[in-house]
Amino acid sequence: MNAEISHDSIRAVLWRGDRLRLLDQRKLPFAEDYIDCMSADEVARAIRDLVVRGAPAIGISAAWGVVLAGQSGGAALAAAMPVLRAARPTAVNLMWALDRMQRRVAEGADVSALEREAQAIQDEDLAANRHMGELGAALLGKKVGVMTHCNTGSLATAGFGTALGVIRAGSSSGQIVRVFAGETRPWLQGARLTMWELMRDGIPATLVGDSAAAHLMKSGQVQWVIVGADRIAANGDVANKIGTYQLAIVARHHGVKFMVVAPASTVDMATASGNDIEIEMRDPAELLAHSGQRTVVEGALAWNPVFDVTPAALIDAIVTERGVIEMPDASRMQMLFA
Amino acid sequence: MNAEISHDSIRAVLWRGDRLRLLDQRKLPFAEDYIDCMSADEVARAIRDLVVRGAPAIGISAAWGVVLAGQSGGAALAAAMPVLRAARPTAVNLMWALDRMQRRVAEGADVSALEREAQAIQDEDLAANRHMGELGAALLGKKVGVMTHCNTGSLATAGFGTALGVIRAGSSSGQIVRVFAGETRPWLQGARLTMWELMRDGIPATLVGDSAAAHLMKSGQVQWVIVGADRIAANGDVANKIGTYQLAIVARHHGVKFMVVAPASTVDMATASGNDIEIEMRDPAELLAHSGQRTVVEGALAWNPVFDVTPAALIDAIVTERGVIEMPDASRMQMLFA
Repeated sequence: MNAEISHDSIRAVLWRGDRLRLLDQRKLPFAEDYIDCMSADEVARAIRDLVVRGAPAIGISAAWGVVLAGQSGGAALAAAMPVLRAARPTAVNLMWALDRMQRRVAEGADVSALEREAQAIQDEDLAANRHMGELGAALLGKKVGVMTHCNTGSLATAGFGTALGVIRAGSSSGQIVRVFAGETRPWLQGARLTMWELMRDGIPATLVGDSAAAHLMKSGQVQWVIVGADRIAANGDVANKIGTYQLAIVARHHGVKFMVVAPASTVDMATASGNDIEIEMRDPAELLAHSGQRTVVEGALAWNPVFDVTPAALIDAIVTERGVIEMPDASRMQMLFA
Repeated sequence: MNAEISHDSIRAVLWRGDRLRLLDQRKLPFAEDYIDCMSADEVARAIRDLVVRGAPAIGISAAWGVVLAGQSGGAALAAAMPVLRAARPTAVNLMWALDRMQRRVAEGADVSALEREAQAIQDEDLAANRHMGELGAALLGKKVGVMTHCNTGSLATAGFGTALGVIRAGSSSGQIVRVFAGETRPWLQGARLTMWELMRDGIPATLVGDSAAAHLMKSGQVQWVIVGADRIAANGDVANKIGTYQLAIVARHHGVKFMVVAPASTVDMATASGNDIEIEMRDPAELLAHSGQRTVVEGALAWNPVFDVTPAALIDAIVTERGVIEMPDASRMQMLFA
């Protein structure tokens, strides 16, 4: 298996010395437009408005936002931290990256040192993804079908991806025969972004409706579900995009294996279990329209949780760049992340 | 419990003596337009084009199509049967209604006798729905939350509905505190049609994404899933809209009860089990666009099964107008439908 032969060349977050260039993911896959952020405020707005999404990519963007603030002087730097932190308050990697930049600031780092730290966060993410790709692919077996959810690829990270990194590695090595991408309502990251990444890489891919997963698994075309994570609790419970928990239940029902792939920065040992993770609720309007066109009668209510929690007991493996935890529980998590 | 106090006044299929008037369900909920069919061919086209949908409503429409053909004479009558039968080849109620009309034709029935037979099919469906409403509601218990899938209401039947009939009855009696309607990709019958019906009746209703069902059940807000059926096999396996099987698995995982509501004409004792039911596949294009706007990169593949099969073992009750089968299996089915 050689991850280096992947054709992946997508970069969602590009540092340009005096600006942060972000691929505008709201317009994909039909336009590859970029937005230049000249300040931390503009980076925070881009995160809020979903120009950039995916926990690792959000963290990296925020780190560059701190560099932009540093270039404007100490007052801008002090003001930037809380603005960036509030951009997507539940994204763990955002907090982790800002904490790391804050430590450099506290040490009295100059702008070029801040720039090196942001670059390190970005480079380490890419390296972690490639390493996780190898670790995850080693679990797959031969000639398997894979289902994934949401987008966990280059667009969501510094490159290569988390769950999609394992899929890239496993496809390069010939282990994966086909990838099934769930649509991922309401934002359709699977339909819009994951299908785009897979087709760019020439990986055989098929889109399925979120509600077709069980019927697909019953058909025998899927041996692994591979997903990312937004937060992993100390007992191995995983918060991830809404629909992940449902996939884990139907995977277990069919004897399909379930893998979570996320960098160690996603692990939050201060959160004891999934019960302690607050689930972000978003605007019901996201469910009441499609492609900007209203589909539901006026006055209707909708319930729009962004994430759900998959209990560790339904997870066969958590893959991080520090290693793999099979059948995760609190003691196995403790061994790797104490 | 008195089902008569429902505010339901929606009629999707209206006989007008020399034409069949169909509510154009493709335009709901934003326009209540009607299409007049003057011939059996026009009825068949309306069924194919999804002007009318829902297994019972399709069967009733086809029966009126036979009457229209009868008004045009014997040649038209002979030609109409295969055209109507081919309109949605997997809809069991369509075949059942046409078989029933065919028997009248074979007996030498005149046009007014055919009209009486079609009216009987329609009237019996409404009566069956009201009776199933009472039978199903009797199972619910008090102060329950209900989740449903697709549209099984007045729009899908002669009126009142199957699963939605139980929901109407259980809401009238105060047993149901809230109904959660799944969107039902790709056609969004839950979002467009079920939410519209529920709000017209003043029943507390909330739309949820198809992938949020498990998280909803975990929250404790749902005690019953209630769905319709397109075909019920002799062993109690149920073919219904894609996503139903997934709901049954996650319902069982959470101890949420699962009820199927369908008229006896949906039961196909000639089909031994769900394994013998062919699943209709539809155009992948239905998954590649939303509200007519393409959302997935060009060249992408999609897998678009319309139905799935829920095994009897995951079903707590099948409700028909002939009675309720709890914990269905081949022998219990045989007792009611031999």
